[in-house]
Amino acid sequence: MSSNNFTFQLHHTDAGCAARRSTFITPHGPVEMPAFMPVGTQGSVKGVEISQLRATGAQMVLGNTYHLTLRPGEEVVAALGGLHRFMGWDGPILTDSGGFQLYSLAERVEVSEQEVIFSSHIDGRLVTLSPERAVAIQEALGADVIMVLDHVLALPNELELIKDATQRTLRWAHRCRISAKRSDQALFAIVQGGLDTELRKWCAQELRAMNFAGYALGGLSVGEKPEQMYRVLDVTVPELPPDKPRYLMGVGRPEDILEAVRRGIDLFDCVIPTRNGRNAMAFTDQGPLRLRNLQYERDDSPLESGCPCAACQRSRGYIRHLFMAGEMLGPILLSIHNLTYYQRLLAHARAAIETDRFDVFRQQKLAAWAGKGMKDEG
Amino acid sequence: MSSNNFTFQLHHTDAGCAARRSTFITPHGPVEMPAFMPVGTQGSVKGVEISQLRATGAQMVLGNTYHLTLRPGEEVVAALGGLHRFMGWDGPILTDSGGFQLYSLAERVEVSEQEVIFSSHIDGRLVTLSPERAVAIQEALGADVIMVLDHVLALPNELELIKDATQRTLRWAHRCRISAKRSDQALFAIVQGGLDTELRKWCAQELRAMNFAGYALGGLSVGEKPEQMYRVLDVTVPELPPDKPRYLMGVGRPEDILEAVRRGIDLFDCVIPTRNGRNAMAFTDQGPLRLRNLQYERDDSPLESGCPCAACQRSRGYIRHLFMAGEMLGPILLSIHNLTYYQRLLAHARAAIETDRFDVFRQQKLAAWAGKGMKDEG
Repeated sequence: MSSNNFTFQLHHTDAGCAARRSTFITPHGPVEMPAFMPVGTQGSVKGVEISQLRATGAQMVLGNTYHLTLRPGEEVVAALGGLHRFMGWDGPILTDSGGFQLYSLAERVEVSEQEVIFSSHIDGRLVTLSPERAVAIQEALGADVIMVLDHVLALPNELELIKDATQRTLRWAHRCRISAKRSDQALFAIVQGGLDTELRKWCAQELRAMNFAGYALGGLSVGEKPEQMYRVLDVTVPELPPDKPRYLMGVGRPEDILEAVRRGIDLFDCVIPTRNGRNAMAFTDQGPLRLRNLQYERDDSPLESGCPCAACQRSRGYIRHLFMAGEMLGPILLSIHNLTYYQRLLAHARAAIETDRFDVFRQQKLAAWAGKGMKDEG
Repeated sequence: MSSNNFTFQLHHTDAGCAARRSTFITPHGPVEMPAFMPVGTQGSVKGVEISQLRATGAQMVLGNTYHLTLRPGEEVVAALGGLHRFMGWDGPILTDSGGFQLYSLAERVEVSEQEVIFSSHIDGRLVTLSPERAVAIQEALGADVIMVLDHVLALPNELELIKDATQRTLRWAHRCRISAKRSDQALFAIVQGGLDTELRKWCAQELRAMNFAGYALGGLSVGEKPEQMYRVLDVTVPELPPDKPRYLMGVGRPEDILEAVRRGIDLFDCVIPTRNGRNAMAFTDQGPLRLRNLQYERDDSPLESGCPCAACQRSRGYIRHLFMAGEMLGPILLSIHNLTYYQRLLAHARAAIETDRFDVFRQQKLAAWAGKGMKDEG
C-alpha cells in the first residue's frame, strides 16, 4: 500500500549499529522513532486517562481488533466517530489484526485457510475472522496503521507447523493487501517463520515484494528465549526495505527494546509497563522496584528522582500504602510512571542514535538495570 | 478551641432562608462555603489522581481516622510528612474521628465509657480508640480540621440508648477538647441526639458552651428518612453559634445538600459521588444516568452538555463501553464527573445565596432532577 498520507523519513543510522532515527508521518501526526506504543486493548490504556497518557510522552497508541470487535463492536465504534474520537486520542493509532489471539486463545480457535473461528472468551459466542474481515473491522475502527491477519503459533514449535503457518500468513497478507481500501490507512505486513532463519528470510522477501507501507515482525515473545528472538531479528531485519518502518510486535522488556533498536527496529508495543504497574512493579534506571515490599513503608523518596510523572510527585511509602490498602490509585500511578519511563527510555535512545552513541547508551542501561535489579528482586 | 490560624468569615445570609455564604480560612488555604468535601478514606479519593481532584474544583478533602490508623498507621503518615504531603493535597484537609465506625462496624465494636475497642475489619486485630487517642491520631495525621470522637448509633433507635450515647458524646467531646494541643488544627464538636429534638437542642447548647472552633451534626444519614433528618436540622442549627462553620457529616444526595444549605449548613462530605460513579451512575441536571443501559450504546453526546470534566470530553457510548468491558477508566471518569457535578452544584448554590435567590435555585434543581430522574430510573 502506498499513499501520500504517510511519509517515512529516515534521518540517521547510528554509526556503531543498525539503530535508526526516523519520523513516521501519519494523518494524525508524526511519530518520532524508535517509538513505543502503549496498549489500549479495549479502547483504553487501563486506568490511564487520555490527558495523563499524553503527558507520558506517548505519540501513538495501539488498539486491539479482536477485543474491539467483541466489545463494543466495530460498528458501534464507527457510529461513535471511529476509534480516535471514541477514545479521545487525536494522535496516531495502530490496530493489530487479531492474529495474536490465534496464539493467546489457541484453545478457543479453529483455523482454516479461509477463515478463523473464535469461541469468544467472554461468552462463547462464535466470532469469525478472515483476512478480509480483519481489514474490514480495522477500516471501521479507522486507525492510521492497520495490520494484516497473520497466523501466530507458540514457540518453540514443530517446523512443519511453523512452515504451514508462515505460508498461510503470506497468502492472507495478499488477501489483506487487495482487500484494504482506505487511502488514509497504512497497511503493515507481518513477517512470520518462528525461529527458522530461512523461513523468516523467505517470508520477509516475499512480503517485501508485495510492497507494504510498513513491516512488522510477529510471532515473537511467545515463549522463546530472548537470545532466540534477537537471532531472528539479526537475520530478518536486513531483508526488510530500509525506507519503511519496522515494527516488533508485542515486545517488550526494556532490555528487549534496546536490543531490537540496535538491530534496526523502529516501533514497539507491549502491555508490560501497564500490567507490571498494576502488579506493583515500577521501572527505574536502577532496576525494578516491587512496591509492596516492607522496605518502602517509610520511604519518602520518589520512585525515580527527576521523573516528572504524577507518581513521582508522591513518595514510595504512599504508593506502597495504596497497594497494601487496595486503592485503585496504586495501579493508576504505577501505570503512568512505567509508561513515562518507557517514553523517556525511547527519547534517550533517539538522542543517542542521533549522536552515534546508541550502543554505549544501551550498555550503560543494561549494566545499571542488572546491578540493582538483581539486588532488588533477590 | 480558638486559634489565630483559622478565620470564619460570614459574608451573607440569604434573604429568603437560612443559607449562608462564607469563607473558612485554614492554614492550608480558604474554603468557600457552602462546600463539599470529596472523601479520601484511605488517603486517596478512589481512582482520582490529585491533579484531577483539584480540577473538579474541590478545595477541602476528608480523610478517615479509623482507616488510616489501621493502614498505614498514623506514625507512617507522620514519618512521610503528614497527611497533606502523604497524599499530595496541599489544600485544607479534615479528618473524622472514627465515631462513624461505631455505627458502620457496630458488630465489631465494644464501647465503654473509657474507650472503644474495634476488631479490625481487615484482620481482626484489636484496635483501641478513645477520645484522647482519636485526637492523638488526628494530630499525627495533621489535618487542618479534626473531629471529636462521638458515639454514633443507627436510626431509628431506642430513646434510652440515644440519650446514653449523646451524654457520652458530650463527655468525650470534653476529653477531646482538653486533649487537643496543636494550634494549627481546629477541633470541631459533633452534635448527637438521634431524632429527638430536645436531645439535639440540649447537646448543641452544651457543646456551644464549650466553645469549639466549629460544629458538626453527626449521627444522621444512618437509616432515618430524609424528612426526619431535615427536622433535626430545623431544630438544631438555630442552637449553633452563628460565627462558626457548621458541618453535616456524611451527607449526601444533591437534594439533601440543598435542603441542608437552606437550613444554614456550611460543609458536607459524602461518598455518593465516587461510590455511585464506580457503579456506573452519573449525576446530571436532568437527573441520574445509568451508564450500563443499552440506550447509551451509540449515544455520542457527553454525560452533561457544557460540563468541563474529563469524562464529558468523551461520549456516553464510550463510557458505557468502559463499564461493559470492565475497564478501570469507567469508574475513574464517572468519579471525576460526579465530583465535578457536586462542586458545580455548590458553586451555583454559593452564587444563588449571594443574590438572595437560593430557594428558587433549590426548587429549580429539585424539579429538574425529579422530572428526568423518574423517567431515567423507571
